[in-house]
Amino acid sequence: MSSELANELFEQFRAIPIFDTHSHIDPFAPTAKSLDDLLNYHYFTELAHSAGLPIAAIATDVDPRERCRAILSQFAYLENTSAYSWMLEIARKQFGFAGDTLRDSDADSLFDAAATRCSRPDWTDEVVRNTNLECVFLTNSFDDRLTGFDSRLFVPCLRTDDLVFHSHMAQTRTRWQSATGTSMESISDIRAGLRVIFERFVAAGARACAISLPPGFRPEPANSFAHCDRALLAGQSSPELSAQLFWLLAEHCREFCLPFDLMIGVNRQVYPAGVFQGQDLFDCRCSLIEYAQLFNAFPEVTFPVSVLTSGPVNQELVSYSWIFPNVLPHGHWWYSNVPAYIEPDLRARLGGVPNNKLLGYYSDAYKLEFILPKYNMYRRLLADTLARDFVEPRRLNVERALGLGRAILRGNGERVFGRPA
Amino acid sequence: MSSELANELFEQFRAIPIFDTHSHIDPFAPTAKSLDDLLNYHYFTELAHSAGLPIAAIATDVDPRERCRAILSQFAYLENTSAYSWMLEIARKQFGFAGDTLRDSDADSLFDAAATRCSRPDWTDEVVRNTNLECVFLTNSFDDRLTGFDSRLFVPCLRTDDLVFHSHMAQTRTRWQSATGTSMESISDIRAGLRVIFERFVAAGARACAISLPPGFRPEPANSFAHCDRALLAGQSSPELSAQLFWLLAEHCREFCLPFDLMIGVNRQVYPAGVFQGQDLFDCRCSLIEYAQLFNAFPEVTFPVSVLTSGPVNQELVSYSWIFPNVLPHGHWWYSNVPAYIEPDLRARLGGVPNNKLLGYYSDAYKLEFILPKYNMYRRLLADTLARDFVEPRRLNVERALGLGRAILRGNGERVFGRPA
Amino acid sequence: MSSELANELFEQFRAIPIFDTHSHIDPFAPTAKSLDDLLNYHYFTELAHSAGLPIAAIATDVDPRERCRAILSQFAYLENTSAYSWMLEIARKQFGFAGDTLRDSDADSLFDAAATRCSRPDWTDEVVRNTNLECVFLTNSFDDRLTGFDSRLFVPCLRTDDLVFHSHMAQTRTRWQSATGTSMESISDIRAGLRVIFERFVAAGARACAISLPPGFRPEPANSFAHCDRALLAGQSSPELSAQLFWLLAEHCREFCLPFDLMIGVNRQVYPAGVFQGQDLFDCRCSLIEYAQLFNAFPEVTFPVSVLTSGPVNQELVSYSWIFPNVLPHGHWWYSNVPAYIEPDLRARLGGVPNNKLLGYYSDAYKLEFILPKYNMYRRLLADTLARDFVEPRRLNVERALGLGRAILRGNGERVFGRPA
Repeated sequence: MSSELANELFEQFRAIPIFDTHSHIDPFAPTAKSLDDLLNYHYFTELAHSAGLPIAAIATDVDPRERCRAILSQFAYLENTSAYSWMLEIARKQFGFAGDTLRDSDADSLFDAAATRCSRPDWTDEVVRNTNLECVFLTNSFDDRLTGFDSRLFVPCLRTDDLVFHSHMAQTRTRWQSATGTSMESISDIRAGLRVIFERFVAAGARACAISLPPGFRPEPANSFAHCDRALLAGQSSPELSAQLFWLLAEHCREFCLPFDLMIGVNRQVYPAGVFQGQDLFDCRCSLIEYAQLFNAFPEVTFPVSVLTSGPVNQELVSYSWIFPNVLPHGHWWYSNVPAYIEPDLRARLGGVPNNKLLGYYSDAYKLEFILPKYNMYRRLLADTLARDFVEPRRLNVERALGLGRAILRGNGERVFGRPA
Repeated sequence: MSSELANELFEQFRAIPIFDTHSHIDPFAPTAKSLDDLLNYHYFTELAHSAGLPIAAIATDVDPRERCRAILSQFAYLENTSAYSWMLEIARKQFGFAGDTLRDSDADSLFDAAATRCSRPDWTDEVVRNTNLECVFLTNSFDDRLTGFDSRLFVPCLRTDDLVFHSHMAQTRTRWQSATGTSMESISDIRAGLRVIFERFVAAGARACAISLPPGFRPEPANSFAHCDRALLAGQSSPELSAQLFWLLAEHCREFCLPFDLMIGVNRQVYPAGVFQGQDLFDCRCSLIEYAQLFNAFPEVTFPVSVLTSGPVNQELVSYSWIFPNVLPHGHWWYSNVPAYIEPDLRARLGGVPNNKLLGYYSDAYKLEFILPKYNMYRRLLADTLARDFVEPRRLNVERALGLGRAILRGNGERVFGRPA
Repeated sequence: MSSELANELFEQFRAIPIFDTHSHIDPFAPTAKSLDDLLNYHYFTELAHSAGLPIAAIATDVDPRERCRAILSQFAYLENTSAYSWMLEIARKQFGFAGDTLRDSDADSLFDAAATRCSRPDWTDEVVRNTNLECVFLTNSFDDRLTGFDSRLFVPCLRTDDLVFHSHMAQTRTRWQSATGTSMESISDIRAGLRVIFERFVAAGARACAISLPPGFRPEPANSFAHCDRALLAGQSSPELSAQLFWLLAEHCREFCLPFDLMIGVNRQVYPAGVFQGQDLFDCRCSLIEYAQLFNAFPEVTFPVSVLTSGPVNQELVSYSWIFPNVLPHGHWWYSNVPAYIEPDLRARLGGVPNNKLLGYYSDAYKLEFILPKYNMYRRLLADTLARDFVEPRRLNVERALGLGRAILRGNGERVFGRPA
């Protein structure tokens, strides 16, 4: 339960424009076209499926209105989850929904209300405005189009999972050839292609290079380029090749002065029969010690780090950020993005990390509508934590607590990643 | 400190009949015959020993009254523990004890009071009634007698540690031969025997198959049946054989429609010189990723999962339950069954798992007297959590919070495991 | 926010003399000579460096006043950290500082105020008195001088990292030869030398043997003394040799009746370019199961255990202390010595460990001035926890809660380690 003081801090935080340093927004379709675009967010489809909904009920060939009914039919089972709260807040804030629960009986009216709002020509502008969104970082593939949108609002970021883990796949190679004019058949070819890509991204105002990594990943320079070249030529994958391609990226981040955004700890395709984007899990036996060589080798590169496991891995993140100038804790990622984990993780970061390094939150959103409820969840927890741990025990007065909150919510992100061009 | 609201929820939860989905109750001696039967619960003997009591003082040949005196002589050192609170609540509720501390000076009077109560002919009925116990699940060996007790109250469950880990031991083989009429000398023999056992258990109203597993266990189908047959014939154990026997059990759970209750993470005999049942510990480096292949291979089987390590492994349990429809978080097991771990683990489960999958609590009790204080501990934490995280921030009204609590305490267990026959 | 009750407990705890069972105090220079001696504590240098200060600004050849200015120039970024609170409390309590923030503009006046106070001839006595310090344990190398100081106040303890991990280094061998008159070229030589050392330390009033250990360390008796002898003769290190040397220490602790203080989980030199003493980190994948053989083999030896990772490893420590009579949880170490980790770890220890085994806190201080603010941080958390978890829910009355606090803060340490001679 929040105190009056926490409420006051929260209200102040709501007034701060959102500087969202990681999302999956498509700048060519940033907002929903319909309720279906929102309920298809993997949080809802996977929870509805987990609660008992067969995947067939939400298959792509199902009528959108039916799919929404199917997902909402499970919402009574989800009302305890954070994801449910986000959707309820969207329904109320964006679609004029007046109820205090979301149920299957609301499906049709909500679907219609959303259809009306989302089809307004200025819907995106409206959401940007009522979200008080300053900018949101994108997740761009190396061959994404980087023009045709406002890059001060939608900030390009180079996502590199494909290069590091899928260089052996024909599709990646074809796309790479198109995008760079080089092959993927040797390290030197890839270097040449990477230069093309980094130059293009930096010119387009990119503000980070990003990647998600499995729990066992260990970055290190190649022992043998010959091995990597052989693997590339043969179109094979290997841990050593992935490690080397990752290392190349770090070198380019250094040269092009881009932060290298590491999202550490996801196992892909653990439940291959799951819903779209609802198949990945993790192994909590993960450690940043695997990254010590990297952090030492690239003191000039800033590494905003997200971890998937709360608790001990977050304690590592706190401690590594306390010791390494170039390691910064970044947001609360995915399975750790629930209040039960944000709260203790945040509290620990506040206790051990210099406050100019705290990159508080990012939305990870697929549609702009989700940014506000997610940020409000975080702002509420930040306000509670600052009130309880700092202002009430008189370690900070309200003004300084507000300053701290502002740095965490916006100032540090802007300084570390740079203002959008 | 609990709010009035939390107290109100707690009172409502106390009125819900207990549907206890895991215990070690002996249906032929479900309640204590004396105080000694209660103080010999391993929680007390191991804590008393840890606090300084020599094992000789509680050996089986010591006079029961003396043994109680010995254990109570350490109770001043235990008054901070959860186990102490349970015993104090039993003493007050069941034996008319009026004090607010339990000390060695109480030994004789409490021993006598317990002797009087426990020797009443209707003692078990009385405890069942004042516990408001609807049913309690048992832990039956494959050769346990399943008749001669009320299987609506005492629900049989097949415990399978012996089969999976001790098939090489002469004693297991003799018991198996008697119970099934088959040998343990080949996989096909074991299949034949398992069919006999599952048929007998299902006919007797069994509601689950259960097993406890060490941290490093990795279920997978055998690469080589020949290897398993050779090991069985030679009476040898091997990880591959255990994995294969476990896999056979999952196949039988599928065929016989029984939930497969997994209790993951215990190392047996870590302190072999410890008290009876007080020798097992764990390795916190444990992950559900080892079970991904199992969960994928048996979508029709329900897996209620208990984990021994709080925190990161509980976060895995939350996340796996969020993604896999057939994985459900089950209770708070053993070393995690203390408020300091129940509270954060529960909070996380509430934030991430559909509420029709939350199997809140089980007693793990050896005597019926322990069910009530353990459930009250959990009910209190559940009430506090629902009040603080849901009702006070207006995410749920009181009525819906009560409904959520009822599902967690009783409704889900009844639906997932089925009503006793 | 603390209740009135918690404040009352806290005030009572402040009156208890401090029995500090682990520090790095130099008995020949126990207090600071200047502000520089305090700001050079690695907590401040590493946090200032992490926040952006180049190491050159705090190099040893920099003028002390300049170095203090440099470190304080980063203090605005550190005001959220626990370390900052300690320094602020020292400035106010010991140096008459009246502000409520510490900033670079305070550097000169604080430097001068400290210079005046620290140069008083009775400065150490004054700090001992206003800290209400009963005694503080030291960290002595095997060749440290053990005379010339008051061993009732400064209690010798034998630190053994050098022997176990650096027996191959020429410097260690030379020092060993000087201190013991034996070589390090065979196990039997080392046994002879160890006897000399243990006799000298026990005669000087030593109260513990101590060591810090990396996450992967596994104590076990040597499989082959021949291997160890060969490694010693060749001046080589090996895990088996370290394990054997460690085992020898446990044997000596048994013979000389010294507690063996284990500090488990540190990786040294993870950031070799970091500030002095600010280069070590950890791997959260650490387990006490590696120590099971040790705990079983030496039931007569008391093992106070500190762990570097909060959460799961602390849960192991709780559970191992609950089961093994000779394992005791000891303090909150280093990266876990922040309120966000002390609070949950303490709460769990209180719920599961007999209270005569709870060794609450030690300062780990390098200068006496830090003992009081660190203890006050812990006392506050202990008071809050006892109030919330025990007194408010009526599990203990105030008097018994105070008794429990006294045992945790002082009584257990005195009994387990023994009164200073």
